[in-house]
This record gives sequence, C-alpha cells and structure tokens, in this order.
Amino acid sequence: MKLLEDRILKDGRVLEGNVLKVDNFLNHCIDVAFICELGREFHRLYKDCGVTKILTIEASGIGIACLTAQFFDVPVVFAKKSKTTNISGDMYTAKVESYTHKTTYDIVVVKDYLSPDDKVLIIDDFLARGSALAALASLIRDAGAEIVGAGIVIEKAYQDGGKIIRDMGIRVESLARIESMDENGVHFI
Amino acid sequence: MKLLEDRILKDGRVLEGNVLKVDNFLNHCIDVAFICELGREFHRLYKDCGVTKILTIEASGIGIACLTAQFFDVPVVFAKKSKTTNISGDMYTAKVESYTHKTTYDIVVVKDYLSPDDKVLIIDDFLARGSALAALASLIRDAGAEIVGAGIVIEKAYQDGGKIIRDMGIRVESLARIESMDENGVHFI
Repeated sequence: MKLLEDRILKDGRVLEGNVLKVDNFLNHCIDVAFICELGREFHRLYKDCGVTKILTIEASGIGIACLTAQFFDVPVVFAKKSKTTNISGDMYTAKVESYTHKTTYDIVVVKDYLSPDDKVLIIDDFLARGSALAALASLIRDAGAEIVGAGIVIEKAYQDGGKIIRDMGIRVESLARIESMDENGVHFI
Repeated sequence: MKLLEDRILKDGRVLEGNVLKVDNFLNHCIDVAFICELGREFHRLYKDCGVTKILTIEASGIGIACLTAQFFDVPVVFAKKSKTTNISGDMYTAKVESYTHKTTYDIVVVKDYLSPDDKVLIIDDFLARGSALAALASLIRDAGAEIVGAGIVIEKAYQDGGKIIRDMGIRVESLARIESMDENGVHFI
C-alpha cells in the first residue's frame, strides 16, 4: 500500500537491534485519520469473507482493530496479556514468545467472546517472527471458530513469521512488506 | 447518558470487591458501533474547546479514545505502562496507584507527542479513585499543555476520584455516574 510505504519512509526510524520505530503515527501517537485508511484497505481485502469478529492483542493492536472494525460493522475482541499464572477455566489461553523483550507470556480471551459460529479476522501492527499471530490463531482454533485471515500493517518479510503463518494455511495480508532495512533506509518488496 | 445506563443495566455484572464487569461491550469485547455513540457524545460536550489531541492510557482506553478522536479529527496519544525503571530523559512520567491490583506503576509518554501548544482531552473507561486520571493530568501539565477536560465512560461517583479531579479545576464529564451498586443492581445519579 503506497500510502503506508510513503509514511514509513517519511516518519519511520530504524534503530539498533532491528527495530523500526513508527510510534509517531502507529503505536504511541496514533494518526487516527491515517489508520482509518488502513482499515478501509483491510476491508477491501476481506469484505467478502463474512467476518463476524476482529481479534487483536493489547495494546498497540487495539486502535487499529477498532478503526478497522467500523468498516466491517463487527465487534473487536482483544487478547489480554496475562500477568498471573492463575488462568481460570473460562478463558482460552496461548503462549507468546517476545524476542524483543526476551520473555514468554500468556495471552487470554474470555471464552464467551469467541464462538464456533465466528469468522475471525486477526489485526495487528507488526508481523516478524509470528509468535503473537500464531498464538491468536491458536485461541481461535481452540474456540472452534474459523480464521478468515490476518491483516498486518507492517511485515518484516526478511524474518520467518510470514512464511510460518502462511504455511499453516492462514491468509496473511500485510499492507507494507519490508525486504530489508538499515541505517540507510527501509526497502519494501 | 441513557443509552449507556441502559446498556450497563442490561449487560453489566457486579462482582465481589466493588467490581463492575462490562467487558462484554467496553473493555475486552468492544462493541465498536456503540462506543462510537459514546464518542459522538464526548464530541458534543467538548466540540467548542479547540481540542488538538486526545490522551488515554493503555490498554482499555485506547479503543474508546480512537473512536472518539474521529469526531474531533485529532490524533490519540496513549500513555504506556512502564515495566522498566529506566525512564529515559525523553519521556514525561507519572505514578499511578492501582487499588484493584494493589500496585504502583509508572506511565510514560514520549515528549515529542505532547507540546505546549496542545489542548488535550483525556479519555478513559473508568473513574473511581482518580489515580490514573491525576497521573494523565500531571503528564499534560509537565508538557506545558492545556487540559481541556476529561471524558469518562463510567464514574463510580461513590468513590472520591471525581471530587479530587474536579477540585483540581479539571472539567470532568462522565457519561454514566454510579451512585451505588450491589448484588441487586446498579443505581445511577
């Protein structure tokens, strides 16, 4: 999506440790009008799939998911990062490995909010190693719901997450796919 | 706001420990079309105040803030809950006391995203003791920006947060104000 690639080139900063900083429009300060345009594009891609629910993960996915959900006229469910080891029986749970923070944590969704009738679109800001996305897909499968696909804002296509998730048979649509990035800039596929 | 009070009466559940559970439409599963109506009401209340930015706190404020921001055509900044004690010099920071979780944590906003020119509307889901709201107000003051006011979805008016914040001279508009609640139901002011 050219609009997004241009914005990343203009406002993104590549930091040490393979970090693309886009918190000036995507995940700290949110350019709401701009994110709406991304939501419109996710809708164009998935509008014929009968989506009944959008699933994302706190915190930075929530804004994108809510603004996207308006085009589909469906609710958003966000998986919570669990701080306790007391996962009660009324929750679906999955493990996420965070390579950035070098930790593992659980995400949970209350069972009431995903049902076998649901056709779920996953929305998230980044796809790199695919651990969060795989965990969200696992919650949906546990609920017996259908995974329509994933809408990702920025995919680091030089990492293996995209391949892993697509090899599971899950449709992944990333609005910007980064082939490489370094101090000289960001290059898209 | 009658629409909201009716929804709380229909879908809210009062749990032990003074907890009002509204995660089936507000803060786990988000009824996006409904939250848009709350955003429209916040806009009606604050539309003549020259709002340039909406500030909220992760995670459950983000969806409400983003859907509200569309009516104002302004960006959303969300304060992050800091896990590290390494607060760098490029951030505003404030302490929040969580009575529910019996902990204290820091919230941070990167300095670039609040400036002395900003007129900031704070949006959050709950107001009870007012600790999160006071911390958000403190971040805005540290930036030299103007606090236009706060838009709260549900105020537990039997707790002292609302009085504390209003006594600071901050305008607080709560769409539902709870006078009391117990196993027999919720009563509004």
